[in-house]
Amino acid sequence: MHINTKNLKAIQDLYPDELAHCYGCGKSNPDGFQLKTYLVGDETIAYFTPQPKYTALPGSVYGGLIASILDCHGTGSAAAFVCKNEHISLVDATTIPVRCVTALLKIDFKNPTPMGVELELKGKLRSIEGRKIWVDMTLTANGIICATGEILAIRLKD
Amino acid sequence: MHINTKNLKAIQDLYPDELAHCYGCGKSNPDGFQLKTYLVGDETIAYFTPQPKYTALPGSVYGGLIASILDCHGTGSAAAFVCKNEHISLVDATTIPVRCVTALLKIDFKNPTPMGVELELKGKLRSIEGRKIWVDMTLTANGIICATGEILAIRLKD
Repeated sequence: MHINTKNLKAIQDLYPDELAHCYGCGKSNPDGFQLKTYLVGDETIAYFTPQPKYTALPGSVYGGLIASILDCHGTGSAAAFVCKNEHISLVDATTIPVRCVTALLKIDFKNPTPMGVELELKGKLRSIEGRKIWVDMTLTANGIICATGEILAIRLKD
Repeated sequence: MHINTKNLKAIQDLYPDELAHCYGCGKSNPDGFQLKTYLVGDETIAYFTPQPKYTALPGSVYGGLIASILDCHGTGSAAAFVCKNEHISLVDATTIPVRCVTALLKIDFKNPTPMGVELELKGKLRSIEGRKIWVDMTLTANGIICATGEILAIRLKD
């Protein structure tokens, strides 16, 4: 089921302008993917449909694209979970004082990811320990988990 | 030191045409990165200079690009090490009967990867167990290791 995100703010759109140039998810990068991560209850969600050029073997999405969107969904999820943990509202905010970068990214490719299908990315918080945030992720296509990911994100100092 | 690769054949240029569409490294993907991996002695090497649009935070390369090129260098390295192991010459070949895909990819981001610099990727074989090939990798810029990677690549059946 596709969650309606129309009335939600994407985490990446709340990054400060000077930290919003990421190719994968920055609102200020017109050439990039502009992935949007939303906090929905206790989990995060993002949707993405790769262009056909991002092929691996014919018919499937290449691993680099999968790693890219899971990386950005992971850092976005980490920022969202920190905000939730610190009672920083995402509804009223125009920017958030939280930005995370990736220290470690691990992807398990469980099934080929089909081309031409909207991919659903989900994130769940594993732990927050000071500036270290661990997030577990799934990437699903047609109801089948094609990849799982885990990320250790580091919160940037102010 | 930049190794002279002029007289070497890139592994990816030896993939069969029907398996050469990968966005990251396929010779048949005109939109893609066309990463080239070379076997040099007991290790593999590739060079890549990201375009400025592949930004993370300003001045550094975004993690998705780093994961992408390490993914393709990893599967290419795996194919190269299988060929070496099975005494399949890369010098005389026009195609090789070996193509690997990624089962697991892990990246440790140790330092920001600077933009505007040629990146050097290296791969070393950890093990070959049947169709499973483990490769350890480094990504270096200006002589500093910015990321390390490990990949479990699976050799496709003929």
